[in-house]
Amino acid sequence: MDPNQKKKALRSLTYGLYVATARDATGYAGGTINWLSQSSFTPPLVMVGIQRDSSVHQAIVASRAFAIHVVGKSQKDLAMKFFKGAEAMGDTLNGYRFETGATGAPILVDPPAWFECRVVEEIRRGDHTIFVGEVVNAGVRSDEEPLTLRDTGFNYGG
Amino acid sequence: MDPNQKKKALRSLTYGLYVATARDATGYAGGTINWLSQSSFTPPLVMVGIQRDSSVHQAIVASRAFAIHVVGKSQKDLAMKFFKGAEAMGDTLNGYRFETGATGAPILVDPPAWFECRVVEEIRRGDHTIFVGEVVNAGVRSDEEPLTLRDTGFNYGG
Repeated sequence: MDPNQKKKALRSLTYGLYVATARDATGYAGGTINWLSQSSFTPPLVMVGIQRDSSVHQAIVASRAFAIHVVGKSQKDLAMKFFKGAEAMGDTLNGYRFETGATGAPILVDPPAWFECRVVEEIRRGDHTIFVGEVVNAGVRSDEEPLTLRDTGFNYGG
Repeated sequence: MDPNQKKKALRSLTYGLYVATARDATGYAGGTINWLSQSSFTPPLVMVGIQRDSSVHQAIVASRAFAIHVVGKSQKDLAMKFFKGAEAMGDTLNGYRFETGATGAPILVDPPAWFECRVVEEIRRGDHTIFVGEVVNAGVRSDEEPLTLRDTGFNYGG
């Protein structure tokens, strides 16, 4: 396999941008991700690839739950703020206000849509873990179109 | 959970459109899919959600391999032709020419990019199976921009 062809082919996959959050006994964690897809209608499941050495990975493993926020077209700043994780202060993460979800995960109030999941499978292969989560709570706050990875000019894949 | 909020939130995820193909002892199979993401850099892994009762599911389970083709912006017709599976005739699937890949899976020659995978995990949860595949071969044939599910006006998710 030609590594350049492999990189180019994998970079032609289409992704949205999402902020994943979780909370364990040590506190709040969050990060911007793009390796995410639904994986079942009934029950509603999603599969998400999370970097093994990230704090949000640790919090998902400990709490068996996470929240996903769809980043809106106008919210590139929000996505960039969460690239390096999340800092909690009062009821804010990286300065963005959150409420507490049914699973205990923090739910940011600014993104146009969000959902919460309970982990049903954890597959450790390669440098990320695949968490399969059952969607147990969800909300839509606006009709703003989602930001895509291609919109940002960044790459994560290849 | 409000089912309408759940459906709206999950339909705001961003997807590309892909044709998945496989070959087992009984013949060739293929289908248009969108539930796909990379899931590791090293080794290069992807995760894909495939409908349990489809013929391509059967061929992937039997052969432990599959190919993914990135559908180009101008190739909505190709994506639509594979919505209901694949019919082989000579060296064509649904009328589109293919070559045989390293894994035995058929590689369509028209899409701008493709890769072949060997299955390393198979997770049966809900109404789809998640196959985790290691990318073992890949190619890029053109710089055409990928078609997205949003471009087509179709939905698959929610």
